[in-house]
Amino acid sequence: MNFMSTKKRSVIDTDIHGSAPREGMLEYMPRIYREQVATFGWRLPAQGGMFLNGGTNGSMQDEAHVSDGTEDSYLNHLRKNHLDRYNVEYGILTGGGYEVHAATDIDFAAAVCSAHNDYYIERYLSREPRLRGSILIPKQDPVLAAKEIDRIGDHPGVIQVIVSNGAQKPYGQRFYHPIYEACVRHNLPFTIHVSMEGIGINNPPTGAGHVTSYIEYRAARAQIMMAHMASFIFEGVFEKFPTLKVVMMEAGMLWIAPLIWRLDQDWKALRHQTPWVKEPPSEYYRKHFRVTSQPIELPEKMEMFHPMMEAISAETNLMFASDYPHWDFDSPMHAFPKLPAKMWERIFYQNAAELYGLPQRKAETEGTLA
Amino acid sequence: MNFMSTKKRSVIDTDIHGSAPREGMLEYMPRIYREQVATFGWRLPAQGGMFLNGGTNGSMQDEAHVSDGTEDSYLNHLRKNHLDRYNVEYGILTGGGYEVHAATDIDFAAAVCSAHNDYYIERYLSREPRLRGSILIPKQDPVLAAKEIDRIGDHPGVIQVIVSNGAQKPYGQRFYHPIYEACVRHNLPFTIHVSMEGIGINNPPTGAGHVTSYIEYRAARAQIMMAHMASFIFEGVFEKFPTLKVVMMEAGMLWIAPLIWRLDQDWKALRHQTPWVKEPPSEYYRKHFRVTSQPIELPEKMEMFHPMMEAISAETNLMFASDYPHWDFDSPMHAFPKLPAKMWERIFYQNAAELYGLPQRKAETEGTLA
Repeated sequence: MNFMSTKKRSVIDTDIHGSAPREGMLEYMPRIYREQVATFGWRLPAQGGMFLNGGTNGSMQDEAHVSDGTEDSYLNHLRKNHLDRYNVEYGILTGGGYEVHAATDIDFAAAVCSAHNDYYIERYLSREPRLRGSILIPKQDPVLAAKEIDRIGDHPGVIQVIVSNGAQKPYGQRFYHPIYEACVRHNLPFTIHVSMEGIGINNPPTGAGHVTSYIEYRAARAQIMMAHMASFIFEGVFEKFPTLKVVMMEAGMLWIAPLIWRLDQDWKALRHQTPWVKEPPSEYYRKHFRVTSQPIELPEKMEMFHPMMEAISAETNLMFASDYPHWDFDSPMHAFPKLPAKMWERIFYQNAAELYGLPQRKAETEGTLA
Repeated sequence: MNFMSTKKRSVIDTDIHGSAPREGMLEYMPRIYREQVATFGWRLPAQGGMFLNGGTNGSMQDEAHVSDGTEDSYLNHLRKNHLDRYNVEYGILTGGGYEVHAATDIDFAAAVCSAHNDYYIERYLSREPRLRGSILIPKQDPVLAAKEIDRIGDHPGVIQVIVSNGAQKPYGQRFYHPIYEACVRHNLPFTIHVSMEGIGINNPPTGAGHVTSYIEYRAARAQIMMAHMASFIFEGVFEKFPTLKVVMMEAGMLWIAPLIWRLDQDWKALRHQTPWVKEPPSEYYRKHFRVTSQPIELPEKMEMFHPMMEAISAETNLMFASDYPHWDFDSPMHAFPKLPAKMWERIFYQNAAELYGLPQRKAETEGTLA
C-alpha cells in the first residue's frame, strides 16, 4: 500500500468559518431593520448562551485575532494562518450567523441571511480566489429560502446552501421541498452544519429532551443528523430530486455505519410501508450524502479504523474539514492516521472537487506518491 | 475456536412480553379509578395510534392467541410456544402497559402501575417458576416511583425496574435520582425498554422533531438511548450510585461503539467541564450498562461482526432477548451468526444470570462444547 505525505499536496478544506461582525452586516440590511436593531438590538437567540464550549468563544486559544484596522483584517489573518500554512487550494466558507436558523421573526431572519450572504460575497469571495461560499437561508420559511437561493445561487463563488442541524422538523419532510427544488435548479448541494440544536424555535437536542453538559450536546448533534438522514431517505426525497446531494458537517462520521446497517435491515422487513423507497438506504447514502471529517472520531482499537472507513464508504463519501478557527480544529497534517495514497487524495481533495465542481488549479510540482 | 449448538442448551431470554388485559387489571385498582374508567375510559395515550407496526398489533402473525377460557390461557400459550420450545430456563417478563409512561395524570399512572405489577405477580410469577418480572413505575414522579419499588422490590420474582425509552428528560438527570436510590436499596437494575417515544407527555422522538414512518421511528429509538447513556455518564450517576446497573432494551447494540468512541474522545478534551466524571465513558459503559440483543443488527460485511461485538464488549455486556411475541422476534436458534462457545454462553445465559442473580437450575445433560 502506498502512503504519502500530506505536506506537499494542496487540500480542499470544506469547513472554514469566516467572521462577519454584526455591525459590518448592518449596512447590507434594509433601513427598517437597521432602525429596529438600533432600538431593540439583534433579536436572535444565541448558541453560546447554553453550553460551555471548548475554547474562548469556541475558538482556538491562539486565534485571538487582533484587527490591523483594515477592512481585510480577518481575511489577511485567515490567509496567513490557515490557507497559506496548510496549502489550502480551496477553502469552503461555511459562514457563521446560524442564529437566524433559530429565530422567531422569519422576515428578520431572511434579511439577516441576505446581509450575511452579501457581506461574504463582497468581503471574502470577491477578494480571495481560493475561497468559496455558502448561502445562508431562512429555513423556517422554505419559500423565502428558495427566493434567497434564486437571488444569488448562480454567483460563481457560491457553491452550496447551508442550514443549521437544529431544526423544527426533520429535513426530509415535504415542508422543505421548495428548498430542494431551488438547490436542484442551481445545482447546489444542501448542507447541514451543526449548530442551534435545541436553541430558539428548534426542537430540544435529543429525543429525551434538553441535556446538561456540552459533551452530551456534542453527542446529540450526531443523533440529530441520524434523524435527518433517515428522513431524507424515507420521505423519498432522492426519488423526487434525483440530482440532490446532502452534506453533513461537523457531527462525526463513524455513527453512519451502524445507522445504515439498521436502516437496510429494517427496510428489508418493512419496505412495503414505504414503497417509494426503491433502493436500500445504504445506496441512497452512497449516492446522495457526503460527510465532512471534523471532529474526526477514532475507534478505541486502531485496527478498526480502516474497516470503519470502508463501512462508511469514506473513499467516495468523506471530505476533509478543519473547522478553522474553532477549538477542536483538525489539522490536515495530523487529524487522520496514515491513509493509502488514493484514499488520501479522495478525502483531502477529489471528493470535494467533484461535489462542488472545483477545477484543479495547481500543477502538483512537489512531492510524489511514495 | 470452539463453536456449539444452541439447541441443546438452556437460555435466559431477557425480554418476553406477557399479556395483562385491561379488564384483568381493573380488579387490582382502587374503586375510584375503576369508576373513572367505567365512566371515562382509560386515560392513557396509545403507542399504536402513531405508526404502522410490523405485525398485527405488533405481534407475529402466528401469535394470534385463542383463549382456552381459563385464567392461565395466555400463560399456557407462552409456556408451550416459547419457554418449552426454546428451552428457556428463565424468561424475564418486561410487561406491557408502557402507556403509563406517557400519561398526564400521574396518580392514575401510579395506580395502573401497581395494578399491572400485582397482576403480573399473581398471574405469572406465582404460577410459573421460569418467569421473572419487572416493576413498572410512574417515572413522571420519582418519589411515587420509589414508593412502588419499595412496595414490591423485595418480592423474589421481581428482578428489575422498568421504564419506557420515551421520556421528558434524559434519565441521568437529578430529577430521577430518587428512583436510583430505591433501585440500589433493593439491588435492582434500572431497565429502559423502547416504547412511548414522542407519545403523550414525552419529547418528540428525535432532536429534529416528530418523524413520519415507522422505520425512522425505530432508528430514533437508538438515538434516544444514546442520549440516556450520555446523560447517565455525564451527570455522574455512577459516582453517586456505584452499584447501579442500567439495561437498555430493544434498541439495537452496534451504535454503542461509535458513541463510546466519541464520548471517550470528547471526555479527554473536555473533562475539566465535568470533573465528577472520573473514568473514560467507555469504562462506565462496561461496568454499569447491559444491553439486550433484539432486534439484532448485523454489519453489511460479516467480517465486521466479531470486531463490532468486541467493540461493544458483547462478551460481558450483551444479553440475548427474543422480544416474544412481537413481529421482529429473534429466535435463539437463528438470530446470531455462529458464536465462539464462551461468548455464546455469556450472551445467552451467564451475563443475565449474573446481572439478575439467577442461580443455574438445570444440570446440562445434553450436548457438549464441540
